[in-house]
Amino acid sequence: MPIVSIKIAEGRTLEQKRGMVKDVTAAIVKNLGCPASAVHINITDLKRENFADGGILLSDNK
Amino acid sequence: MPIVSIKIAEGRTLEQKRGMVKDVTAAIVKNLGCPASAVHINITDLKRENFADGGILLSDNK
Amino acid sequence: MPIVSIKIAEGRTLEQKRGMVKDVTAAIVKNLGCPASAVHINITDLKRENFADGGILLSDNK
Amino acid sequence: MPIVSIKIAEGRTLEQKRGMVKDVTAAIVKNLGCPASAVHINITDLKRENFADGGILLSDNK
Amino acid sequence: MPIVSIKIAEGRTLEQKRGMVKDVTAAIVKNLGCPASAVHINITDLKRENFADGGILLSDNK
Amino acid sequence: MPIVSIKIAEGRTLEQKRGMVKDVTAAIVKNLGCPASAVHINITDLKRENFADGGILLSDNK
Repeated sequence: MPIVSIKIAEGRTLEQKRGMVKDVTAAIVKNLGCPASAVHINITDLKRENFADGGILLSDNK
Repeated sequence: MPIVSIKIAEGRTLEQKRGMVKDVTAAIVKNLGCPASAVHINITDLKRENFADGGILLSDNK
Repeated sequence: MPIVSIKIAEGRTLEQKRGMVKDVTAAIVKNLGCPASAVHINITDLKRENFADGGILLSDNK
Repeated sequence: MPIVSIKIAEGRTLEQKRGMVKDVTAAIVKNLGCPASAVHINITDLKRENFADGGILLSDNK
Repeated sequence: MPIVSIKIAEGRTLEQKRGMVKDVTAAIVKNLGCPASAVHINITDLKRENFADGGILLSDNK
Repeated sequence: MPIVSIKIAEGRTLEQKRGMVKDVTAAIVKNLGCPASAVHINITDLKRENFADGGILLSDNK
């Protein structure tokens, strides 16, 4: 039932994603007490020109 | 006014998307009684490595 | 695997939501060919002051 | 930079949310190598009538 | 066509929301050149216990 | 703390995105009174076949 959407900057490896969904799922199961099978995660890879903090694109951030 | 966001695994054809937005819109209009023109749908195609159930990436699921 | 997020104006009845998720799920199954059990829908009820089209809040729209 | 949105059924305690965001943040930091301060989490509490799997509302699920 | 979702801490006044959607819509129209009527904004008010930065709930932040 | 997600049709230039995040951030700061650094924006570029109004894909709209 928990639906987890994670937006990250593109370029992460398959290994990083594999570890992240495993550990995030465990973190939710531990705290909410739901079965792991109920945790649905989706990841969106965004270009650095598609994130901004303080009105400045990440790709412009030196 | 209804805003519908659909995340699916990539690889669906244009024909599948065309049918899906037509039928999903009709399903909402039928049940909520709003005009079809008020229904806004957006679709995000996600790689199989970007979905996980039970802490396991869909791309790892044999 | 399909994750469907639907944002609607608050005030819909349980019966309307029940019909909507049944019919939206059927619309997706029909077009994508996935099992119904793979379709996860979540609904967010928003106040009319939390929607805007053309820069005007729905609650201001006479 | 990672933006994490978590939709859960309402009724979780403050303590559960506090533990969940701490552990989810640690899980992301461990796998992506970003600073904890870059991880932004938001939680949406949804009524059980606002979740559906397989076309059936969670609140109808006996 | 632009769909804008804004998550803010609860407690904003109607006047603040009214101004925000007007100005955000104008900012998008100015930069993308689309008609104002194509800009759809939705706002989600979140409790301070539903936001976290760096693994700490906003409501725990003194 | 405000998290802003913007879904637009693909094809916008870097210059358009740069101006949009700058102006949207200013619009939020002006109305909510939060610091610019607290405003996090993410942009998703969607193909025209991934948007639909009134049940018709944008890419089918002549």
